[in-house]
Amino acid sequence: MAPRILICSNIVWAHDDVKRLLGDIAEVVWVDSPDRESFLAEFGPGGKYENTIGIYRENESAKKIGVFDKALIDGLPSSVRWIAHNGAGYDPVDVNACKSRGIYLSNTPGAVDDATATTALYLLISTLRQYSLAERSLRELKWKPKGVNRHTHDVTDKTLAILGLGGIGTRLAVLAHAFPMRVIYHSRSRNPDAPEWCEYFENVEEMLAQTDVLSVHVPLRAETVGLVGEKMIRALKPGAIIVNTARGKVIDEDAMISALEDGHLAAVGLDVFPNEPEVNPRLLEFPQVTLLPHMGTENQDTQRKMEVRALTNLHDFLTTGMGKDLVPEFKNNNEVKVKQKL
Amino acid sequence: MAPRILICSNIVWAHDDVKRLLGDIAEVVWVDSPDRESFLAEFGPGGKYENTIGIYRENESAKKIGVFDKALIDGLPSSVRWIAHNGAGYDPVDVNACKSRGIYLSNTPGAVDDATATTALYLLISTLRQYSLAERSLRELKWKPKGVNRHTHDVTDKTLAILGLGGIGTRLAVLAHAFPMRVIYHSRSRNPDAPEWCEYFENVEEMLAQTDVLSVHVPLRAETVGLVGEKMIRALKPGAIIVNTARGKVIDEDAMISALEDGHLAAVGLDVFPNEPEVNPRLLEFPQVTLLPHMGTENQDTQRKMEVRALTNLHDFLTTGMGKDLVPEFKNNNEVKVKQKL
Repeated sequence: MAPRILICSNIVWAHDDVKRLLGDIAEVVWVDSPDRESFLAEFGPGGKYENTIGIYRENESAKKIGVFDKALIDGLPSSVRWIAHNGAGYDPVDVNACKSRGIYLSNTPGAVDDATATTALYLLISTLRQYSLAERSLRELKWKPKGVNRHTHDVTDKTLAILGLGGIGTRLAVLAHAFPMRVIYHSRSRNPDAPEWCEYFENVEEMLAQTDVLSVHVPLRAETVGLVGEKMIRALKPGAIIVNTARGKVIDEDAMISALEDGHLAAVGLDVFPNEPEVNPRLLEFPQVTLLPHMGTENQDTQRKMEVRALTNLHDFLTTGMGKDLVPEFKNNNEVKVKQKL
Repeated sequence: MAPRILICSNIVWAHDDVKRLLGDIAEVVWVDSPDRESFLAEFGPGGKYENTIGIYRENESAKKIGVFDKALIDGLPSSVRWIAHNGAGYDPVDVNACKSRGIYLSNTPGAVDDATATTALYLLISTLRQYSLAERSLRELKWKPKGVNRHTHDVTDKTLAILGLGGIGTRLAVLAHAFPMRVIYHSRSRNPDAPEWCEYFENVEEMLAQTDVLSVHVPLRAETVGLVGEKMIRALKPGAIIVNTARGKVIDEDAMISALEDGHLAAVGLDVFPNEPEVNPRLLEFPQVTLLPHMGTENQDTQRKMEVRALTNLHDFLTTGMGKDLVPEFKNNNEVKVKQKL
């Protein structure tokens, strides 16, 4: 009996790649279970998912079976050896539960860099130039917002601070350097692959004091919840802007809103929120903010790249015993240091 | 009696520069005439504007005295030798009337390049990724627009066609090259200063057939009215996008709207309109378009640069007899060819 690979629950763009990458080496089964209980039941003898070795997983599946929390992972049989998550942020999968069950977990890091960094650049331009506000003014047939020049600036020559210089942050640095902006960064350690024109600050507050726009590129982990809180926000230069395309919970939303209210922050550009798809209605009261519904990687070119990359991890595991995008928690400490830039 | 320089009618950011550049060499007079008749009357003997040699002019002045058309220019006394227009596009000033009266005209070309090209880049990202639509969806509390991925693309590796590779077009080329996009262009002649990675097309329709995004950077002249019309639009690759930060009248709006209706154009990103501040209400019916109220240079950093550049032309004329930004119509034909790309 060929090992089974589950597609859980959706492939939109890479149908041909499923056949190309997995067709000859596994039986591909498309998950159609209506809830978690029936999903887990099908792994039993004679079930549709019996003898599953790998699972392709994307966020849409949470609507029926929930996120891959400890309970779900503990309910998987020992045949399951690899979960290929489609996405850079793998917080919807309990990595510790995977580790204790001996199930490898991969994500799709490189595939999202370009699209997410482009989103951050868009939010940076929109907030510095107040284009979201300007378009709303036009659509209300009011033409230009009154006095908008008092609150708007060129992008060129401003200082962009990147919190977490991994793949997405480095890509944003390159796009911003074209203007050029001055690009500075803070990570847990200096990134040896950083372009030479990116200036490293070991002390995050020294960096923030020089920042016109802070762009957040930190993964969501227990230790990064609320990382950008009152202390960091107040360390920013008055009139600074925060852009977030990482995860909503990395920022202390109350502290951010207070700083918008008293003018310490000139604006924010947000693609992510603490409780998506909910958006704190207080954010909608600030005319100067730009708010996107987690569009970081929402386009067919990048979605296809991400699907292919997740499937490739399953292909590589089945054919070589290891996938390229094993998440850092599975690697030894030295490797982790290099991979997890803050 | 020192020659007079008129500030007509507004300096917002460069007050100190007025003194620095003109204080010692002219009497600076701030125009406060409520209408054209009283404006022209003050140039007479004993009037507030008698002995005026140069005029700083920006668009706000049109609200009281109208644009600088033939009637206004013909009404100026022979003492007036230079009009320093604040803006890249000088279509609000009748350059032929200036020439026949022997009045030099300058604009502010370089000062607007960065801010306008940034606006074009913003419209390009917004339309390719459908971020204007996405933000409206979020603000209606609907989170992501349904099926948005079917209409959205990465910026990277797409082909950007620049119509008119002057200062603004070249600046946009550099910003787009950072992704990289493939950058191609058409101008009346090859731009000798074009970066080597910009591919020149003598035949505009050959260029358009390969275009994902067309960005328009053509000045408004009699011969460019409706230049981007039915023929050019239909020569574009189906599903292409048009971005316009130049002048609304350069595009045939009816032809553009028809192409949006039948889907030949996937989207448009517009900062300019034929009859500003009016916006054709039919444009508001397309959810996929991004519309800005002529924000190209609307920010304090660039506005200040433009004011200083216009004032510098007056300073240079008074001290050396010539300003750097004399418009191309005053130069000999060879010079014109180099300056007026397309």
